[in-house]
Amino acid sequence: MTKRITMAAATAGRAEGGTSLNAFDNALLAAGIGNINLIKVSSIVPPEVSMIELPKIKPGALIPTAYAAMTSETPGETVAAAVGYALPDDPAKNGVIMEFHGIASQAEAERAIDAMLEEAFRVRGETIREKKIFAVEHTVERIGCALAAITLLAEEDLV
Amino acid sequence: MTKRITMAAATAGRAEGGTSLNAFDNALLAAGIGNINLIKVSSIVPPEVSMIELPKIKPGALIPTAYAAMTSETPGETVAAAVGYALPDDPAKNGVIMEFHGIASQAEAERAIDAMLEEAFRVRGETIREKKIFAVEHTVERIGCALAAITLLAEEDLV
Amino acid sequence: MTKRITMAAATAGRAEGGTSLNAFDNALLAAGIGNINLIKVSSIVPPEVSMIELPKIKPGALIPTAYAAMTSETPGETVAAAVGYALPDDPAKNGVIMEFHGIASQAEAERAIDAMLEEAFRVRGETIREKKIFAVEHTVERIGCALAAITLLAEEDLV
Repeated sequence: MTKRITMAAATAGRAEGGTSLNAFDNALLAAGIGNINLIKVSSIVPPEVSMIELPKIKPGALIPTAYAAMTSETPGETVAAAVGYALPDDPAKNGVIMEFHGIASQAEAERAIDAMLEEAFRVRGETIREKKIFAVEHTVERIGCALAAITLLAEEDLV
Repeated sequence: MTKRITMAAATAGRAEGGTSLNAFDNALLAAGIGNINLIKVSSIVPPEVSMIELPKIKPGALIPTAYAAMTSETPGETVAAAVGYALPDDPAKNGVIMEFHGIASQAEAERAIDAMLEEAFRVRGETIREKKIFAVEHTVERIGCALAAITLLAEEDLV
Repeated sequence: MTKRITMAAATAGRAEGGTSLNAFDNALLAAGIGNINLIKVSSIVPPEVSMIELPKIKPGALIPTAYAAMTSETPGETVAAAVGYALPDDPAKNGVIMEFHGIASQAEAERAIDAMLEEAFRVRGETIREKKIFAVEHTVERIGCALAAITLLAEEDLV
């Protein structure tokens, strides 16, 4: 918490697993964030944070993360997870992150995030300068998980 | 985490939204904590923490928060959320926070919190010096959310 | 987060309570972690962390914790919670924590954790050097909770 968040990076992944928790773990690995400690946050991009490609993060690091995950044990079912962020015109103001998970296609998940971000900015009276959505869908073979995440990062978290 | 929690502030809010997550976001805004990153904690007031009015918090700050939220998509339904804290006679001991959410009235939520705090102190063998409950109810129009929260704050979190 | 995690300690507990949240609170007290702020993490043992007996932790400290809890209001029902960790041969690599909760016996919970840890290491291509599982079951009288947790600790968290 004393650490200063200066970067944020989005990612998404999907996987099968032997159990729901393993499917989630495997989706995290597929997304490149399987060896860190996610701390769920709800869900703001601090002002003046740079959006970057997912960097190499120290194993075990405690990383505040906005994420959505959908696990299913129903073969043939298509699940989706998505996150998105919108940043304001005014760089002194914060951005907003929205999450979605459900029995849905990737396109449906993306539309849901888009509508939620638009409303979040409308109610804040801010204009969106930049908006980006990261979504993934997965059709379950046995036990599957779709996951999308935005990590909030400090210099010290990087390898 | 290295930051030292020296204050705690309670708040509550309620709102409608276009989706459940927007209703939650709007309730956070109504409660004055819509532009920070909530990190859910379970749920202790550290010793020697001052209970204060909700201050202006830096946008995007990572704030450990005990909170309860109840969202409903059933028009006409009344939902409630409440939090409460109790502090012990002995200032070296910690206080306790309890949360409630459900299809309930504000008064029911308050009674639930009160009973939970009493039990929490009975089992700890401590006497309550101060007890306060923050509750809100919301009757849903389309999609609504009631939310109550106690934020744990450090000097550096304030504007 | 700036604080450096150098230790981890596992615990488990079970209890009855007047409400589900009090049963959870009482199970935390029974496990020796009822007076700290748990921050849920998902769920990695950082490299070079020492596994220790649960120490005395400062009241109110913010402690990243992987935990599983199962509460039931069905008298006679047996619920279980378990956590387990596995550490790799290579001390520069992280370990993994798995959690389980459900209507189950302690032995079933232990088997579930064991299988999840094995898969987690198989997919990572690592060999398990050390593996330990902490599980508890509770047969509900009125309202009961079984809880298991692994706390991630820094020097400054200890009394």
